[in-house]
Amino acid sequence: MNRTLGVCYYPEHWPEAQWAEDAQRMADLGLTWVRIGEFAWKRMEPREGEYDWGWLDRAIDVLGAAGLKVVLGTPTATPPKWVCKKHPDMFAVDENGHVRGYGSRRHYCFSHQGFLEESCKIVRAMAERYGRDPHVAAWQTDNEYGCHDTVLSYSDAARDGFRDWLRAQFPGEGNDGDIDALNAAWGNVFWSMDYDDFDEIGLPNLTVTEANPAHVHAFRRFSSEQVVLFNRVQAEIIRQFSDAPIAHNYMGRVTEFDHFKVGDDLDIASWDSYPLGFLEDRVGADAAHQRAYARQGDPDFQAFHHDLYRAVGKGRWWIMEQQPGPVNWAPYNPSPLPGMVRLWSWEAFAHGAEAVCYFRWRQAPFAQEQMHAGLLRPDSVEAEAFGEAAEVMAELAEAPEVSPVQAPVAIVFDYDADWAWSVQPHGAGLSYFGLVFDWYRACRKLGLSVDILPPDARDFAGYALVLAPGMMHMPDELKSALQNADAEVIFGPRAAARDVDFNIPTPLPPAWPGSDLTVARVQSMRPDLPVPVQGGGAVSRYLEQLEGGGDVVMTTDDGAPIAVRCAPHVTYVGGWGDDAVHMRLIETLVPALEVDRMPEGVRRRDTATERFWFNYSDRPMQVGGRDMPPAGVSRQTL
Amino acid sequence: MNRTLGVCYYPEHWPEAQWAEDAQRMADLGLTWVRIGEFAWKRMEPREGEYDWGWLDRAIDVLGAAGLKVVLGTPTATPPKWVCKKHPDMFAVDENGHVRGYGSRRHYCFSHQGFLEESCKIVRAMAERYGRDPHVAAWQTDNEYGCHDTVLSYSDAARDGFRDWLRAQFPGEGNDGDIDALNAAWGNVFWSMDYDDFDEIGLPNLTVTEANPAHVHAFRRFSSEQVVLFNRVQAEIIRQFSDAPIAHNYMGRVTEFDHFKVGDDLDIASWDSYPLGFLEDRVGADAAHQRAYARQGDPDFQAFHHDLYRAVGKGRWWIMEQQPGPVNWAPYNPSPLPGMVRLWSWEAFAHGAEAVCYFRWRQAPFAQEQMHAGLLRPDSVEAEAFGEAAEVMAELAEAPEVSPVQAPVAIVFDYDADWAWSVQPHGAGLSYFGLVFDWYRACRKLGLSVDILPPDARDFAGYALVLAPGMMHMPDELKSALQNADAEVIFGPRAAARDVDFNIPTPLPPAWPGSDLTVARVQSMRPDLPVPVQGGGAVSRYLEQLEGGGDVVMTTDDGAPIAVRCAPHVTYVGGWGDDAVHMRLIETLVPALEVDRMPEGVRRRDTATERFWFNYSDRPMQVGGRDMPPAGVSRQTL
Amino acid sequence: MNRTLGVCYYPEHWPEAQWAEDAQRMADLGLTWVRIGEFAWKRMEPREGEYDWGWLDRAIDVLGAAGLKVVLGTPTATPPKWVCKKHPDMFAVDENGHVRGYGSRRHYCFSHQGFLEESCKIVRAMAERYGRDPHVAAWQTDNEYGCHDTVLSYSDAARDGFRDWLRAQFPGEGNDGDIDALNAAWGNVFWSMDYDDFDEIGLPNLTVTEANPAHVHAFRRFSSEQVVLFNRVQAEIIRQFSDAPIAHNYMGRVTEFDHFKVGDDLDIASWDSYPLGFLEDRVGADAAHQRAYARQGDPDFQAFHHDLYRAVGKGRWWIMEQQPGPVNWAPYNPSPLPGMVRLWSWEAFAHGAEAVCYFRWRQAPFAQEQMHAGLLRPDSVEAEAFGEAAEVMAELAEAPEVSPVQAPVAIVFDYDADWAWSVQPHGAGLSYFGLVFDWYRACRKLGLSVDILPPDARDFAGYALVLAPGMMHMPDELKSALQNADAEVIFGPRAAARDVDFNIPTPLPPAWPGSDLTVARVQSMRPDLPVPVQGGGAVSRYLEQLEGGGDVVMTTDDGAPIAVRCAPHVTYVGGWGDDAVHMRLIETLVPALEVDRMPEGVRRRDTATERFWFNYSDRPMQVGGRDMPPAGVSRQTL
Ligand SMILES: [Zn+2]
Ligand SMILES: [Zn+2]
Ligand SMILES: [Zn+2]
Repeated sequence: MNRTLGVCYYPEHWPEAQWAEDAQRMADLGLTWVRIGEFAWKRMEPREGEYDWGWLDRAIDVLGAAGLKVVLGTPTATPPKWVCKKHPDMFAVDENGHVRGYGSRRHYCFSHQGFLEESCKIVRAMAERYGRDPHVAAWQTDNEYGCHDTVLSYSDAARDGFRDWLRAQFPGEGNDGDIDALNAAWGNVFWSMDYDDFDEIGLPNLTVTEANPAHVHAFRRFSSEQVVLFNRVQAEIIRQFSDAPIAHNYMGRVTEFDHFKVGDDLDIASWDSYPLGFLEDRVGADAAHQRAYARQGDPDFQAFHHDLYRAVGKGRWWIMEQQPGPVNWAPYNPSPLPGMVRLWSWEAFAHGAEAVCYFRWRQAPFAQEQMHAGLLRPDSVEAEAFGEAAEVMAELAEAPEVSPVQAPVAIVFDYDADWAWSVQPHGAGLSYFGLVFDWYRACRKLGLSVDILPPDARDFAGYALVLAPGMMHMPDELKSALQNADAEVIFGPRAAARDVDFNIPTPLPPAWPGSDLTVARVQSMRPDLPVPVQGGGAVSRYLEQLEGGGDVVMTTDDGAPIAVRCAPHVTYVGGWGDDAVHMRLIETLVPALEVDRMPEGVRRRDTATERFWFNYSDRPMQVGGRDMPPAGVSRQTL
Repeated sequence: MNRTLGVCYYPEHWPEAQWAEDAQRMADLGLTWVRIGEFAWKRMEPREGEYDWGWLDRAIDVLGAAGLKVVLGTPTATPPKWVCKKHPDMFAVDENGHVRGYGSRRHYCFSHQGFLEESCKIVRAMAERYGRDPHVAAWQTDNEYGCHDTVLSYSDAARDGFRDWLRAQFPGEGNDGDIDALNAAWGNVFWSMDYDDFDEIGLPNLTVTEANPAHVHAFRRFSSEQVVLFNRVQAEIIRQFSDAPIAHNYMGRVTEFDHFKVGDDLDIASWDSYPLGFLEDRVGADAAHQRAYARQGDPDFQAFHHDLYRAVGKGRWWIMEQQPGPVNWAPYNPSPLPGMVRLWSWEAFAHGAEAVCYFRWRQAPFAQEQMHAGLLRPDSVEAEAFGEAAEVMAELAEAPEVSPVQAPVAIVFDYDADWAWSVQPHGAGLSYFGLVFDWYRACRKLGLSVDILPPDARDFAGYALVLAPGMMHMPDELKSALQNADAEVIFGPRAAARDVDFNIPTPLPPAWPGSDLTVARVQSMRPDLPVPVQGGGAVSRYLEQLEGGGDVVMTTDDGAPIAVRCAPHVTYVGGWGDDAVHMRLIETLVPALEVDRMPEGVRRRDTATERFWFNYSDRPMQVGGRDMPPAGVSRQTL
Repeated sequence: MNRTLGVCYYPEHWPEAQWAEDAQRMADLGLTWVRIGEFAWKRMEPREGEYDWGWLDRAIDVLGAAGLKVVLGTPTATPPKWVCKKHPDMFAVDENGHVRGYGSRRHYCFSHQGFLEESCKIVRAMAERYGRDPHVAAWQTDNEYGCHDTVLSYSDAARDGFRDWLRAQFPGEGNDGDIDALNAAWGNVFWSMDYDDFDEIGLPNLTVTEANPAHVHAFRRFSSEQVVLFNRVQAEIIRQFSDAPIAHNYMGRVTEFDHFKVGDDLDIASWDSYPLGFLEDRVGADAAHQRAYARQGDPDFQAFHHDLYRAVGKGRWWIMEQQPGPVNWAPYNPSPLPGMVRLWSWEAFAHGAEAVCYFRWRQAPFAQEQMHAGLLRPDSVEAEAFGEAAEVMAELAEAPEVSPVQAPVAIVFDYDADWAWSVQPHGAGLSYFGLVFDWYRACRKLGLSVDILPPDARDFAGYALVLAPGMMHMPDELKSALQNADAEVIFGPRAAARDVDFNIPTPLPPAWPGSDLTVARVQSMRPDLPVPVQGGGAVSRYLEQLEGGGDVVMTTDDGAPIAVRCAPHVTYVGGWGDDAVHMRLIETLVPALEVDRMPEGVRRRDTATERFWFNYSDRPMQVGGRDMPPAGVSRQTL
């Protein structure tokens, strides 16, 4: 595989006279890719049906002439004012019933059919014009689905769509659904919530106290599906006119829609990596950790997403936007430690990225992102990241070929489970993403490389360890597949705790084939009341009382089992452990793994041919006998 | 009095085939009561005017056949969808103007006349059918009035009702009120708020800055009255058809309506006791206290409500819902310490409960409360609480007869004062409930049993001490009654600080008969700036400057009086003391009381025949020469 | 100049029989001024067009007969109900789209033309009747513009007004504006935000993510201008009928409109000084500081406003409302330390006040401010402040004449910059007011007297030091004037960082004439990550990377320049320093200043003839060889 760099560029932001020089500087830097177009709907179609392609034709030509390959974005994340005037009800509505209107971006409801039609028209027009353009080497659909909390909409369009979706979920006679089936599945007998007709069903917001979790969870599934459909329509149109691969740029820790299902309609998964912004606004770390990594980013957050999108892209994945300096949108926006842009870039490649594109070429002096750094300053002088990108370019030229490799550890990641925990966290602050990420971090602190798997994975061949924490619904086929896998399997807590309709199944969870292990009781606890575990560490915030099962692998100090065998190679964990607990479980249960406890902030990743170390700390570290400076990257041929 | 146990049961949630076995197991456990029906409106009246009583007839028969007595609940807390479609404006509206719609429970505005009529119809239909049923031994109206913040509604129906209520408060000629009288009473000359007509008066939400406190306080009184009327109508209908006693199940720390006034239309007061949930979400304790009692509950919160509802029920009171394990609705939902379900049950009996009913028989595997424990797990296996309930049952069988007893201490509790403090806390976080509860705790830490009295109590015979903290309005007759009581009286701060219309009276408060004691100035203070008191302890957050009066009982370190005699047996306290201050005042002023400073977490309660100790701490304690294990209950015949 | 005292009085609140006695007591106390009328619209015009002047005629006569001079307030802050019924759309709308309705005060949108007309009518009627009244010696327009966050309104009236205002800002052919010019100026090409017509432009609320900062900033300018226009219309009407000076009573730290521009239409600036309330709710100090000054107020907050309004009033300024005891509206409302009312009064005079008026004469027993202290208690007994006012009165009688004096230090204060920082703080919690106030405090801790200057100041003669921190837009003429000034100039950070349309200019900031100093990169940082500075102190939260320029005046411990010469007498500061950094910069750069590091809580202020010291601490202090008690005021003839 040929590893490449790229950049995001907005020709419409700059005088046309400057384009050629920009293109030449990109080429001189060694960039391969330039992504353009994704916010330029108003320039492409200034008025309904009136297209202006001239500027875009010329921009693509100028870039292509410099040897750059264009990634062309569909502009549906920024519908112009005329679209909104034509469809005044196209906006999403927030949980409080407030319309989320025009004036920034992503101002549309995924369920609005009129907007969907407008989107199809502009995508078709673009695909027709540029589908065979030799310089257009890839496509991007829309931009960061779900960013700014835009998946869930409580609009009339969403409500109507939800009703129809439910009819299809509970099919009945003729065109109507079976409302009795829905009532039974949701347990609507509780609190007299039975419906007589699908048109009586509302969206689960603005209720007096919590809505039925089955209702909310169904709405979450519907909302995810709307994103999948919206993306699919665009991809299908593009494919009619183009053979270039199609990507979407996912955003970090946006879990409101199923990225795997959107990925099924794409050729490449990509994501937008802003390590410092993410640490401040979404990693969820405590203040001490945020201080320690303020200028480097969390040591595992990027890697997690790299591994996630390698799975979403079925091996093909990019960084579509890489933070190059301070951003504008986090609570605090510090400068990266010198070397971090290089580190982040190499880390992506170590996890299998095909390309890393920096966002953006030149800092814009106007509008919402004027404080967002680029490779160039607003005055076109090189910014810090420019030099680090050049360094990466030079190193890439010397680097060996890469090929896919399977990691020794797999973690199953299930968006549906994330919605389930979100609908019913049971304890304040508990989230599925947080639980999976805790397990991921434990693996990484042991120096392990990890593959992330979708919830419909059934083939676990080649893995020494498969982790499946917190999957609130586990289909029987998944249980069987894990039971029959060669790998050591660790799952729980809260595993198989709900049937597909969000009810507690009987026999009680986890109902593992051949095991009588039972979660007899569930409790959530104040974070300041951890329960110590024998051998060190603690379980906190979430703890189950386990009965039955096979060998007890781990207990609390008081002797309560927290990890119990369901089968010779299958262990259920009945609580939320800390790193010490998770690491010891892995070390104990899977001695075959080549673990190595990493120094603070240092992480390791193996490709097929090389072993990489990355020093996320801001101090020099020693690892494997080698000295690593702050922000250091170290490689060893395997 | 015969003390009994019971349980809450939802036959409509389970296959009819299971009812008989359930009933038998209840009977075998020794239960007397089974409460049913209170959320089943949709099953009783699936469509307007179409009643389906068959299932309920059979359920009552099955339960009765097993020897159980039924408490039948009216289902008005969960109006079915058809009711809401018929009355689309029946919902409450929150302070921001958002409609609080269908999809959970309590989705109605108490002021909506159309919904009131629907409620009357279903209650009448139930009463007609079951009023003379030999198995229906008690009734419950609605469910937890005010839960989920449902007393205050800013709907059009509430606005119209408020205007009419005000016309009646300020009667004028003909059918109209005297608007000038209202303007004068509220001081509307301030900020040009005078009205020309009652129909100009709006609800006091969405104002630019705070609304007139007289306006807000009147709205609070109106809103409470709407609950009283709603309940009264149900009680009156039931009484036409049934001689069984009527109860309502109040919820902990819901103070938005006057429980005494609702109680005047009931035969039995009952409340729903969730000690762990309450500690997390409404006691208001600091984190250290929440940690210390996370699995036991606050040592005084339940007792306070026991004593409150003994007063509301004029001696007859129950626990209608007793927490049996982890609940689902608090920020954190831990398991009770083993023994706590027994302790909570016995504490209720020690405070005079006739019955303790556990919520619920079997954990429901579906809908909003699927994580709420029951006596049985969802798979019908006995949960922890089952054994503790059996233990209580066995102990009850051996226990002596009980009879009413008067406590040595009385505390006056006045809902109107709670609204007044809420309308005008004067300092962030100050609440009347908090102040009264602080005094209650001080009594309990001294080992004292307490009676709670309504604000219209005038007979204080038999009490050694009467406490009346924070009553912002004190009718002259109450002052006289306290002045003439044999008891030692402690009142204040903020006592008699407002006339009935929320104005500062002249002469200035407290204007005690025969005393010139005057609150010359009032200040609220940062919680981190306590004012030390001579002899130990401090006053914090609220402090008055006192002038005149008789003997100074207590002063700050700087010599400012904070407790001053108004009469030989009447002491005014001009600040918010801590436990040390309150306890020392009681010890000093009422030497006749048999006080005994309790060890941490231990509380004492005397019935007519026995002295009880309860150990709420999670460590062994010694009290009165006896060892008490964690969650221990100890009894001594008097 | 003759320094005087006054009081705020509401004759309409009290029986007419009491007026004469009140007036006599005011006169006996030595008061000169009595402000009345500003909330009495309903009493002046009970119904549209029906005026009732009798009571006001008599009130003015009674007060005048006692020798008092009346300040007559226009009552437009409290439109009566009939005005609101006539103009149901006159209310402001908050950022969430909720109407801010009737029931308190300031319930109007500045942009509503119908309300503006009603205001004109009542103001004209008052001015006609009282413009030549010999007792009416001054006027006040409205009351506390902007209090309760009332400048910004998202109403339809505001939206329509904004569109017209934008047309005028970007003039085009005929009556329409040049929409292309607006699109270019705002950078609307970003995110397809280009408009085709001014009527497409909405208000910048309820967008999905942040709106274009140029859009928001323009709306802030428009909103300020609406206040200016509203006030100007009133002033112009009054001037047609009266020669008495016109004032407005500004409120502390209300920065949403340009006080200088409103001041251009006034004769006198005045402000309402509530030191204890402000410390609790708007100074922004940490808890330790709030504890230390809870009963005294922040040592610099009042002085800052005194100096500000001396500038706004072009030398003529008053305290229109002076806190006399506990207020009612802060989170906590403690009593002032004895002596503070005197201290606050004298501090105002030391900063050049012509008059100090106490709010209010007698505490009202009713309505919203019933817990707000006055000079009298509700029962007409003297409250604490009465005696302190008398003391001030006696001291004033002995005090020397005063005349204007120029301070050695000037600070430029620019409301437009405050809006700019508010639109784009870049780091959580950063504000322009906070930055300027930090510099002001540093000057005060050095014992320096300060003048505040408007942003259009161009003459800096006589100043040893001119500070201009944080001016995000700096017109070229201001740069030239500062470059040519004799004073030492310190400016930055973020200075000249935006052009007039909120775009980053090229060359990059600060683009100082003759200097190549460049802000190469900007970062904001967590408050818990301060960057140490060589010589002591730190820069925190906001830090720029500086390139070029002249001598480096100060660096971080790591050697990064943070203060750099742009010219021999001009220094740019590229970060947010603490007091230590600011004080050392002043001491180092301006050795000619007579600095004296003040003890904790002590401040110094020089008039033309006297030097004053004020002890804001609650402990005795020594300064300049003299002992100062808590709340002490000390004077020395110069
Ligand atoms: Zn449409
Ligand atoms: Zn109008
Ligand atoms: Zn709203």
